[in-house]
Amino acid sequence: MAALLMAVVLKGIAASELAALTDAMLASGARLAFGAFPTPRIDKHSTGGVGDKVSLVLAPLVASCGVAVPMMSGRGLGHTGGTLDKLESIPGFRTDLSLAEARRQVERIGCAMLGQTPEIAPADKKLYALRDATATVEAIPLIAASIMSKKLAEDLNGLVLDVKVGSGAFFPEPEDGLELARTMIRLGEERGCPTVALLTAMDRPLGWACGNALETEEAILALTGEGPPDLLEVTYALAVEMLLLARASADRDAARQTLEDALHSGRAARKLQEIIEAQGGTPAVVEDPALLPQAGAERVFEAARTGYVARIEPRAIGNAIVQMGGGRRTMEDVIDPGAGFEITVKPGDQVERGEPVATVYGRDEAVLRIGVEALGRAVEIAEQSPGAPLPLVDRRVSRQGEWRWENGDWKLENR
Amino acid sequence: MAALLMAVVLKGIAASELAALTDAMLASGARLAFGAFPTPRIDKHSTGGVGDKVSLVLAPLVASCGVAVPMMSGRGLGHTGGTLDKLESIPGFRTDLSLAEARRQVERIGCAMLGQTPEIAPADKKLYALRDATATVEAIPLIAASIMSKKLAEDLNGLVLDVKVGSGAFFPEPEDGLELARTMIRLGEERGCPTVALLTAMDRPLGWACGNALETEEAILALTGEGPPDLLEVTYALAVEMLLLARASADRDAARQTLEDALHSGRAARKLQEIIEAQGGTPAVVEDPALLPQAGAERVFEAARTGYVARIEPRAIGNAIVQMGGGRRTMEDVIDPGAGFEITVKPGDQVERGEPVATVYGRDEAVLRIGVEALGRAVEIAEQSPGAPLPLVDRRVSRQGEWRWENGDWKLENR
Repeated sequence: MAALLMAVVLKGIAASELAALTDAMLASGARLAFGAFPTPRIDKHSTGGVGDKVSLVLAPLVASCGVAVPMMSGRGLGHTGGTLDKLESIPGFRTDLSLAEARRQVERIGCAMLGQTPEIAPADKKLYALRDATATVEAIPLIAASIMSKKLAEDLNGLVLDVKVGSGAFFPEPEDGLELARTMIRLGEERGCPTVALLTAMDRPLGWACGNALETEEAILALTGEGPPDLLEVTYALAVEMLLLARASADRDAARQTLEDALHSGRAARKLQEIIEAQGGTPAVVEDPALLPQAGAERVFEAARTGYVARIEPRAIGNAIVQMGGGRRTMEDVIDPGAGFEITVKPGDQVERGEPVATVYGRDEAVLRIGVEALGRAVEIAEQSPGAPLPLVDRRVSRQGEWRWENGDWKLENR
Repeated sequence: MAALLMAVVLKGIAASELAALTDAMLASGARLAFGAFPTPRIDKHSTGGVGDKVSLVLAPLVASCGVAVPMMSGRGLGHTGGTLDKLESIPGFRTDLSLAEARRQVERIGCAMLGQTPEIAPADKKLYALRDATATVEAIPLIAASIMSKKLAEDLNGLVLDVKVGSGAFFPEPEDGLELARTMIRLGEERGCPTVALLTAMDRPLGWACGNALETEEAILALTGEGPPDLLEVTYALAVEMLLLARASADRDAARQTLEDALHSGRAARKLQEIIEAQGGTPAVVEDPALLPQAGAERVFEAARTGYVARIEPRAIGNAIVQMGGGRRTMEDVIDPGAGFEITVKPGDQVERGEPVATVYGRDEAVLRIGVEALGRAVEIAEQSPGAPLPLVDRRVSRQGEWRWENGDWKLENR
């Protein structure tokens, strides 16, 4: 296997071989099976980023629109956070559902948010350990097979991929993101799972909050209509694709309207409460986010000069959270859910010297110093207005072709 | 390790990395150490061929000229034969000497012929098993490291490499043979072991006999001056290099004269008797080769038409010997030492239809049929005289440069 992995990294792998590998990984474990359950089931997968709390908003939002969301997520590793860690900042919340529990919960309330169970694709876990030991992690086909072997075990009617691009993404280059998207789409479609990908920006953190409890709080705010606009835009764009794959809406505009209604009516927030209650958590956090773990200390970070925010480097932020105890160096690490940042400016914003641009949260002064030092490196302020950042939602890829977002609509680029 | 092996096959390996790998393999085991023993020690290694019984002639010949030869050899595998299997066709002959036994024997009679002991480079054995399982056997740097990690453990003052080229060689292309030679020479020279390579022809079997006991008999004949001319030429060419590396002769002509004297005086044959006696064998086989195991049956093979011998394909012959029980499919196989061929024609020879060109030897009629069928495929007779075969001894490679054999002398081609 180790020799095969190295050969794949150095020489690539034919589509038919990759399909066979994915099938073998899928067949190594158990699968969800919804049988005659009539509601369409759609999941979303993100390739990972900093401040990416989309799943926490998206899953209840889409479930509140009558589409089932059996969502299997991962933990943070390296500079990117993980949905499971964010969910577990909610007191009592259990993510270690069995497949049977997850199935019953999806059938009852339309959504379950769980971790990769040991029953699903055990070959993937072994392969990952081997890739980690042989410097063969960063290979598009192997990443695609790993993701799809787990997603295809969920008995889905469709899958939406959020492929991050930009300096904070696993593959910064849009061409690599496109290749990863195309590979996963081919694997999904050939196995009867309609798959669509959006390429979204990860050249700056998404939203304002970075860090587990802070991101959970921001996700709750977003579900009540008060979240950061970029987080809402990415969430809506992905949710629209999910409703369309589920054939729950006639078209893109209708899907967006359905989603906005669900959010503004409070149905989406109530669905999050239901999920939290079903998984043993404290549903009151939705009404009172102050019930989430709080950092022991905080410090405001001010702009060092007058000018324009030129860059907010996601990797520096993500790595700082790990150093501050809010992320993992190894899968065994215990994390401090309160550590992190609220960064209230975005690239392109004008700032005055001494103006507050962020707040650092941590357990003590030593942790705050790490955060302040990281912000000093991550937040770059320039005299001139910087060039435009990456478009927030840039490309759409499906079996039918590739689109670019232009003037408020998708424009077909390749068929 | 498996991932590294595949990366080396697909991407190559830097000289410094290969040197480190070879050193690590060498350091994984024990080494011969001759201490203050004053006689220079030179070994020869062949990359393997069909009918290649050079070691059996060369080792006693060179040892009889006052140069010590601690010779570590392998078994046959695939279509190529192995020196150990040929030696073991001598009744009683032991090749499983310990390093201590080998050292004492070399110090006493100037030569020991043994197998790779478990003490030497155990990492090589493990790596080979891994290469076999991962389709990474055929990589020049890995082959060079494997050979040199064992040869460098012999405490040599010099090493001569017989790199076979042509259709029956492990690497048929001369360019690959040159590359292998250059790689081994670099590894040897950098570690204080002067190393010289000759590229010799393996587009036809060497000599007449192919098969273990038959080849041992032919080697004995050669030591008494009656062997096939091509076998003697290759042996002399390699032996001259060994005497020069040992500084036992002033120049090439003197070395050749010393060797011819040793052979024609009977000293070389007596040295073989000493070696056989020292290693538990029956020294009388040298006087009476009929003491070697004899095949139960034999059949003469005649030319099917009148014309010129165009080709004698070594792989067909070597593979037939395996099928006839005279070679190994796995290292555990027990072999029939009597099985094989005597092929008395060479490419370019004129033959008449019905003229005997070979004899097949085997335990029974079924085995003889396999041999006859193989000869039918291997020996090609054409109407026209074929082009010249590969020169028997074609190139010489050393740290100083590369030479081609022309008009009875080496002509420098590259420095």
